[in-house]
Amino acid sequence: MKKSASIALIATLLAFTTTASAQFAKPDDAIKYRKNALFVMQQNFGRVAAMASGKAPFDAKVAADSAAVADYMGKLPWAAFGEGTDKGETRAKAEIWKESAKFKEYAEKMQAEMSKLAVAAKSGNLDSIKTAVNATGGTCKTCHDAYRKE
Amino acid sequence: MKKSASIALIATLLAFTTTASAQFAKPDDAIKYRKNALFVMQQNFGRVAAMASGKAPFDAKVAADSAAVADYMGKLPWAAFGEGTDKGETRAKAEIWKESAKFKEYAEKMQAEMSKLAVAAKSGNLDSIKTAVNATGGTCKTCHDAYRKE
Repeated sequence: MKKSASIALIATLLAFTTTASAQFAKPDDAIKYRKNALFVMQQNFGRVAAMASGKAPFDAKVAADSAAVADYMGKLPWAAFGEGTDKGETRAKAEIWKESAKFKEYAEKMQAEMSKLAVAAKSGNLDSIKTAVNATGGTCKTCHDAYRKE
Repeated sequence: MKKSASIALIATLLAFTTTASAQFAKPDDAIKYRKNALFVMQQNFGRVAAMASGKAPFDAKVAADSAAVADYMGKLPWAAFGEGTDKGETRAKAEIWKESAKFKEYAEKMQAEMSKLAVAAKSGNLDSIKTAVNATGGTCKTCHDAYRKE
């Protein structure tokens, strides 16, 4: 009884600890995946931010399309922050895995603001877009300041 | 009259030739963008392909989710193949810009097959997934053989 209970516990723990990173063949793939997804997100967000700040002319269609892609991309990186992906070509701080609840909260806050930006961009109202760009940019900075190395 | 017509023509040509790459601040960003989008696509497609080939256990939910992401990602790289993005850290062959109609046809064929895979994965039928994985993988290979350097 005791032995089989231990085996069941070990199996559960293994399943738990491997779930997040099991989607990737190796940790380096996970690291590359989250960086690549974040870059695609950033390029689309940056395009809208450039319009919001007046650095680029406002194009409502491009803004709406780009914000929609940024919104979608913002959901992808987090599954790639599994256990064992803290070493390698990454600027991710070890605190991410020590404060996973706070990291998750930051990631979800960004996704919520990015979704609001997508709604604003779809509406075509530049003032709403400016407000949403600032709010979203703030969530990027908060998380980078806490969890990304220089 | 003649002069203003020429200016209008030049403006039109400039608008046409810069559209595809104007979304990116510099050619290197475009190159990184398409590579990053293709990597995120490949990781998701590869997860489904591993299940189709029996290398990974079949998980209907993961397959459906991954195929949906691969389908979405497959639409993103093409805007980043603008003029002037043939030089740099890229294995893209110069033929891409000389045979743009054929390249576009290959890219669209891949997207069509990837969309079929997303439908198959959503249905949860492993045989349909296998068929769609093979068809999609074939379109990747055709395009890589023609337009990607070793």
